[in-house]
Amino acid sequence: MEKAFEIDFINKIAEKFRRSPFQKNSTHQSDAEIISFDNGLGRNLAITMDTISEEIRFGLYDDPFLIGWMTVMVNMSDLAAVGATPLGILISEVFTKDISAEYISKIQAGIEAACRTCKTYVLGGDISTADQLALTGCAVGFLTEKGFLSRVGCQPGDLIYSTGKLGKGNGFALQKINRLQDAEINYKPVARLIEGKNLLGIANCCMDTSDGAISTLDQIMRLNNCGIKLNDDWENLIDDDSKNICKMLEIPTWFLLAGYHGEFELIFSIDPNSEQKLFSNCNQKNWQPIKIGQAIDKPYLVLNLYGKEQKIDSSLIRNLAFEHSSDVKSYINSIFEYDEQLKG
Amino acid sequence: MEKAFEIDFINKIAEKFRRSPFQKNSTHQSDAEIISFDNGLGRNLAITMDTISEEIRFGLYDDPFLIGWMTVMVNMSDLAAVGATPLGILISEVFTKDISAEYISKIQAGIEAACRTCKTYVLGGDISTADQLALTGCAVGFLTEKGFLSRVGCQPGDLIYSTGKLGKGNGFALQKINRLQDAEINYKPVARLIEGKNLLGIANCCMDTSDGAISTLDQIMRLNNCGIKLNDDWENLIDDDSKNICKMLEIPTWFLLAGYHGEFELIFSIDPNSEQKLFSNCNQKNWQPIKIGQAIDKPYLVLNLYGKEQKIDSSLIRNLAFEHSSDVKSYINSIFEYDEQLKG
Repeated sequence: MEKAFEIDFINKIAEKFRRSPFQKNSTHQSDAEIISFDNGLGRNLAITMDTISEEIRFGLYDDPFLIGWMTVMVNMSDLAAVGATPLGILISEVFTKDISAEYISKIQAGIEAACRTCKTYVLGGDISTADQLALTGCAVGFLTEKGFLSRVGCQPGDLIYSTGKLGKGNGFALQKINRLQDAEINYKPVARLIEGKNLLGIANCCMDTSDGAISTLDQIMRLNNCGIKLNDDWENLIDDDSKNICKMLEIPTWFLLAGYHGEFELIFSIDPNSEQKLFSNCNQKNWQPIKIGQAIDKPYLVLNLYGKEQKIDSSLIRNLAFEHSSDVKSYINSIFEYDEQLKG
Repeated sequence: MEKAFEIDFINKIAEKFRRSPFQKNSTHQSDAEIISFDNGLGRNLAITMDTISEEIRFGLYDDPFLIGWMTVMVNMSDLAAVGATPLGILISEVFTKDISAEYISKIQAGIEAACRTCKTYVLGGDISTADQLALTGCAVGFLTEKGFLSRVGCQPGDLIYSTGKLGKGNGFALQKINRLQDAEINYKPVARLIEGKNLLGIANCCMDTSDGAISTLDQIMRLNNCGIKLNDDWENLIDDDSKNICKMLEIPTWFLLAGYHGEFELIFSIDPNSEQKLFSNCNQKNWQPIKIGQAIDKPYLVLNLYGKEQKIDSSLIRNLAFEHSSDVKSYINSIFEYDEQLKG
C-alpha cells in the first residue's frame, strides 16, 4: 500500500518520545492507549484524548450543544473501540474573549447530556482563552480480565461488520457545507460502548469510524496486511437521509464512505466461525450488527462501482483528506477527479 | 472573605454536571481529581488537565521548547500536589497552519525533556489545527495506600511551608513583558513530585503555586476558613534574580507574590509538632523546605510591608488577575493602585 501521510506525520511528531513500559499498545494499533495499572489483577486502564477544533473553525459544528456533545462522544467512542467502561472525562475548554454566557451554557448542556447518555461523568478540566474556540476531552476507562480490542488481528477470510449504517457524518457535513436548510440530518452520534464491550473475545480487530469509513478500512488493511471487499449491496449499508443529500447535490453515494467526517460506528472483523456467537451476544444486548464485507488476501479495498469491481485507492483518498484538511470544498473536488477515473 | 470571581465562574461552568460516585475530591479541593479505581485495593488514580494557551498568546512563552516543557510540567505539578506518581501524559497539540517542522520539533523536544525529568512518558494524544497554537496535557498518576494530599485540612497554628523560593514565575513574566534582554531569569520549573510524595502523612494541606503565591494562599485560606501571616523576613523567601528584575523596573518586590504566573512550588501546612518528622523526611530525600509563615484564626493574609503589618486583600488581587487576565499591563497598573493604598 502507498504511504499514508497522516501516519508519517504522527510518527514524526512522536519520534522523540520513549514508550512507557506500562503501555500495552503500540502507536496506531488501538483507538485508546492501554496502560497496565495493576499487573497483579490484570486490570488495565484505557485513556484517550481528542480535540474539537477544525469542526468549529470550518463551521461544521456551529451549534454549541453539538460542540459539547461531540467533545464527549469522540472520546467515548475511542473507549468503546477498545472495549473499555468509562470512568469519566476531563474537558479543557478554550473560549474566545467575546463568548456569551448563554453560548457557554449550551456547550455545557451538550457535555452533560452526552455524559448521561454514556452513563459517565465530567471529572474535571480546565478553562482558558484563545483566538478560537476549541474543546479537548480526555476520557479514561477501565478494562476487565477480558482484555481489550485493538485494530490488529484481522485475517483474510474474516467477516467485516459495522455496528450501524455508514455515511451520516459525511451526509451531515455535506448538508452544512452546502447550507441545505431543508435537509434534516440529525447528527448526534452515540458512542458504541455497549457494543464494544460485547465484542471482547469475539472481534479479531476493531476501530471506530471517527475519520469516515474508507479511512478506517484503510487503517485496518494497512495494520493487518490484508484487503477488504465490501458487499456488492454496499449502498444498502448507507444512511438513507445521507443518500438523499447526495441525490439532491448530485454527488455519488460512495463519497459518503470517502469523506473524513465520521459517523462513530465501530468497524470490526470476526472469524466466520464466530458469527453465531456474535449474533447470540448481540441479541442479549439488543443490538444488530451489519455485515459490510470480507477481508481478502490482496491489499486492496474492493467496491462494486459503476458496474464493475473496482480497486479503490484508499491511501490516495486518505492522503487527499490530510492534504486538503483545511479546505473541505477542494477536498470534494479532488474526490470528484478521482471519481472520473473510476468511471473512465 | 470576598467572593473570588474565578471560583464563581468555575462553579457556573460545572453547575450542570453530576459528580461521579467514584470521585473522592470535591470541586476546588485538590489540584488533581482523585478517582477511586479499585476499591478493594484502595489504589486511587489522580488525573488532571491543563492547557497552555494564554501564555502563548501574550508572548510569555515564545520559546517552543518552553511551550513543550510547560505543557508537561503544569500537569505533573498538579500530580505532585496530591502526592501521586505519574503513569504518563496525553498531549493534544493544536497547531496553526503556518507552523514549521522545526518549531514543532522544538516543542516535542521540550515535551520529551520534561517527561524524562519527571521519569514519565507521553502515552498518546491528538493533533489538530486552529487559529492559535495551544497545547493541552492530561496527566494520570497513581496513589498508594498512603492516600492523597488535598487543599483542605489547614488549622490555625499550622506552619506554612514552601518547597522552594517564590516569585520566579512573575520575575520571568516581568522580564518578558518589559523585553529586558540583559536580565536572565532561567524559568524552567520542575514539578515537585518527590516532595509531594514525601509530604503524604505529614502535610495537613498542599497546593501548587501555578497561579502565583497570593492566589494559592488565598485559596488555602478560603477553603480552610483561616488566615495566613507570612514571615516578617518574607523578602528572603523570594528568588534573587526576580528581586533584581523588580529593582531594575522599580516595581515593589511583593508584586512577585501577587502576579498570576506561577513558580510551581508546593505550598503546604503542617502541625508544629510534625516539624521534626518533616525535616527527617526531607533529609532522606535531599530537599529543603522553606518556612514562609503560619496559619491564623482571622481570615486575612498578613504581610509586613512599608513598616507595618498589613492585611492584604488577596480576594481583590485574585479578582484583578481574573478581570485583567487578557491584559497583563493593565493588571500590573491595578496592583500599583492597590499598592498606593498600602503605602498610604
